[in-house]
Amino acid sequence: MKFLHTGDWHIGKKLNGFDLLEEQRYAFEQVMKLAATEKVDGIIIAGDLYDRTVPAVEAVELFNQMLIDMNLKAAYPVFAISGNHDSATRLETGGPWFEALNFHLHTRLEQAFRPVECGDVQLYLLPYFEPFEARQYFQDDSIRSIDVAMEAVIAEMRKSFQGDKQQVLVAHFFVAGSSTSDSETKVTVGGLDVVPLALLSDFDYVALGHLHYKNALNGANARYSGSLLKYSTSEVNQPKGVWIVDVGHETTFDFVELPFLRDLNVLETDFATLMDPAYYDTIQRDNYLAISLTDRGVIPNVMTQLRTIYPRIIQLERAFGRDIKQASRKTTEAIQVTSPTELFANYFSETTGEPLSEKQVAWLEAEISQIEKGEQ
Amino acid sequence: MKFLHTGDWHIGKKLNGFDLLEEQRYAFEQVMKLAATEKVDGIIIAGDLYDRTVPAVEAVELFNQMLIDMNLKAAYPVFAISGNHDSATRLETGGPWFEALNFHLHTRLEQAFRPVECGDVQLYLLPYFEPFEARQYFQDDSIRSIDVAMEAVIAEMRKSFQGDKQQVLVAHFFVAGSSTSDSETKVTVGGLDVVPLALLSDFDYVALGHLHYKNALNGANARYSGSLLKYSTSEVNQPKGVWIVDVGHETTFDFVELPFLRDLNVLETDFATLMDPAYYDTIQRDNYLAISLTDRGVIPNVMTQLRTIYPRIIQLERAFGRDIKQASRKTTEAIQVTSPTELFANYFSETTGEPLSEKQVAWLEAEISQIEKGEQ
Repeated sequence: MKFLHTGDWHIGKKLNGFDLLEEQRYAFEQVMKLAATEKVDGIIIAGDLYDRTVPAVEAVELFNQMLIDMNLKAAYPVFAISGNHDSATRLETGGPWFEALNFHLHTRLEQAFRPVECGDVQLYLLPYFEPFEARQYFQDDSIRSIDVAMEAVIAEMRKSFQGDKQQVLVAHFFVAGSSTSDSETKVTVGGLDVVPLALLSDFDYVALGHLHYKNALNGANARYSGSLLKYSTSEVNQPKGVWIVDVGHETTFDFVELPFLRDLNVLETDFATLMDPAYYDTIQRDNYLAISLTDRGVIPNVMTQLRTIYPRIIQLERAFGRDIKQASRKTTEAIQVTSPTELFANYFSETTGEPLSEKQVAWLEAEISQIEKGEQ
Repeated sequence: MKFLHTGDWHIGKKLNGFDLLEEQRYAFEQVMKLAATEKVDGIIIAGDLYDRTVPAVEAVELFNQMLIDMNLKAAYPVFAISGNHDSATRLETGGPWFEALNFHLHTRLEQAFRPVECGDVQLYLLPYFEPFEARQYFQDDSIRSIDVAMEAVIAEMRKSFQGDKQQVLVAHFFVAGSSTSDSETKVTVGGLDVVPLALLSDFDYVALGHLHYKNALNGANARYSGSLLKYSTSEVNQPKGVWIVDVGHETTFDFVELPFLRDLNVLETDFATLMDPAYYDTIQRDNYLAISLTDRGVIPNVMTQLRTIYPRIIQLERAFGRDIKQASRKTTEAIQVTSPTELFANYFSETTGEPLSEKQVAWLEAEISQIEKGEQ
């Protein structure tokens, strides 16, 4: 069976006040064209359908239309889950009716254990959930983190695995431990919400949502779809698109990059260049732009002047200031592999200018040790 | 065909901070029991399903469950429209899928012209709409009020009337001109949003929502369902329930009063009596209560003391002050039949203590006359 794996649509997302509904509609149309060309058997949407729990009415209107186009007009089976940006309850309105037409939208943990069949594939649609929901569902008070919860979740799912079929998991959380990247340590994310990739090895494919970069994980059987569009300046260099996944005795997946209606770019140069037709006639001025000025002097009405040439500026900063911020960002990257004690000691000295005293270090280590023992 | 006609559910409504979800769930259960006893062929809900355009997540949860109970579990065909308290766009999510299971929820004007058939009955589900929507739909710039819009709407509906069938209209607006009440003049509601009952004479039954009193209109072929519960102190003496409507060659309708989980009552007496077990043991203290104190002296911590006996006080006032307010309310009732000029003159003199001068009256009449001619 052939699936199109997308996710993190964030319908209704704004960039510095600019509404992206037009760009989102365009991106969706590209997804639909590809689904038709590839003749997929179903569309997987791995959570964060909306950008907010209470989306604006225009976002609801666009999303309703997308669902109609996908499932009612083009008649694709749809396999979707709610993400952490969605309100599970608001999203589940209509869910029980959707199923009659092969549109499966799971928003509650218990729905994850009833696999949806599509040909020879059993799809387990696991919505975003918090540890307390798993604690309640399994009546197990020891479930305090997502990785522990996921062990119980996977064990429960395995009970309905059929040996002659393939299994696909659709989920929305932070998975770490890929073969090609070892920088994602527990310290990075606080140790509470990371699922080890090894836990998911029973599935033929794991269609993930949550992280916006499609290369965020390179598992043998797992991928992030990445977001529908570039939703922050940290994503300017990330290709956006979807995975075409062929699930069979051997599962293969290929990423297909899709074009934007308006891209998001960074321009770094001086003001005079930016205002020079010889420069701006060579670039897509209609795109969303983060501008980094290399000038150091005062420029009166800089934004007003730039906007006459560039209508969609989402960020304006001085390269000088940015360099300072980047230096401190590098520090952050470096400390990802340090221990919690060192991490705190660095933070303390950066903030106060003083190192921790021996007494403070002793107190800190005792506290951290207590927390790690779960005696908090 | 036999229909149950309800409306104005206002799910999520609060009374002075008190959540009514439990009472609403109970009332809904009474409706469902009656539907089963009466073996109705369908349930009509005439708008204002929710109390707000963005209902709280608990309200969404209850309403989703009600829809599942009515349409999926009990398998009743449901005929519903959005009211002025609903967000049409938010409510329409899932609508196109609902139809596959005979749940018809219309939220846009254009849907009103495609009748839904149920046995020999054609149901026209007309959601609440504003004149500009009719202006756009009919491409007719002269549509500036609901009564004018409704002439066009009815004419359009008549095109699909089938002579061998009965026609039912489900709508949510202010209808006036019943045979038993002539107090509802144009002045009462500003002249913009009233539909004359005579316009609706082509229908075998008109299932209305909007006004909360089931006796608000006594048309030969039209009724308001009234609200699910008493939603304000002005409704304390109104029975609440639903209409059982038998549509055939002769259409009949009967009102069935339904019990409350907790009623809303007014208590008018002095503080000492209210605190006396001989008094309060005789009444339903668990009900929602509007208390009107006949005392004139100061009572320290009056609300705190009363709450020890009466847990659900939604209003506390002095009968003395209320009498003054009622006197001014009577004035308001008296002026409902006066002309706009007199109405303004009264307002002017009540507010300023001075009567209008002759010059002012002349100016006022000229202005009103211009407005009435539509030359504003």
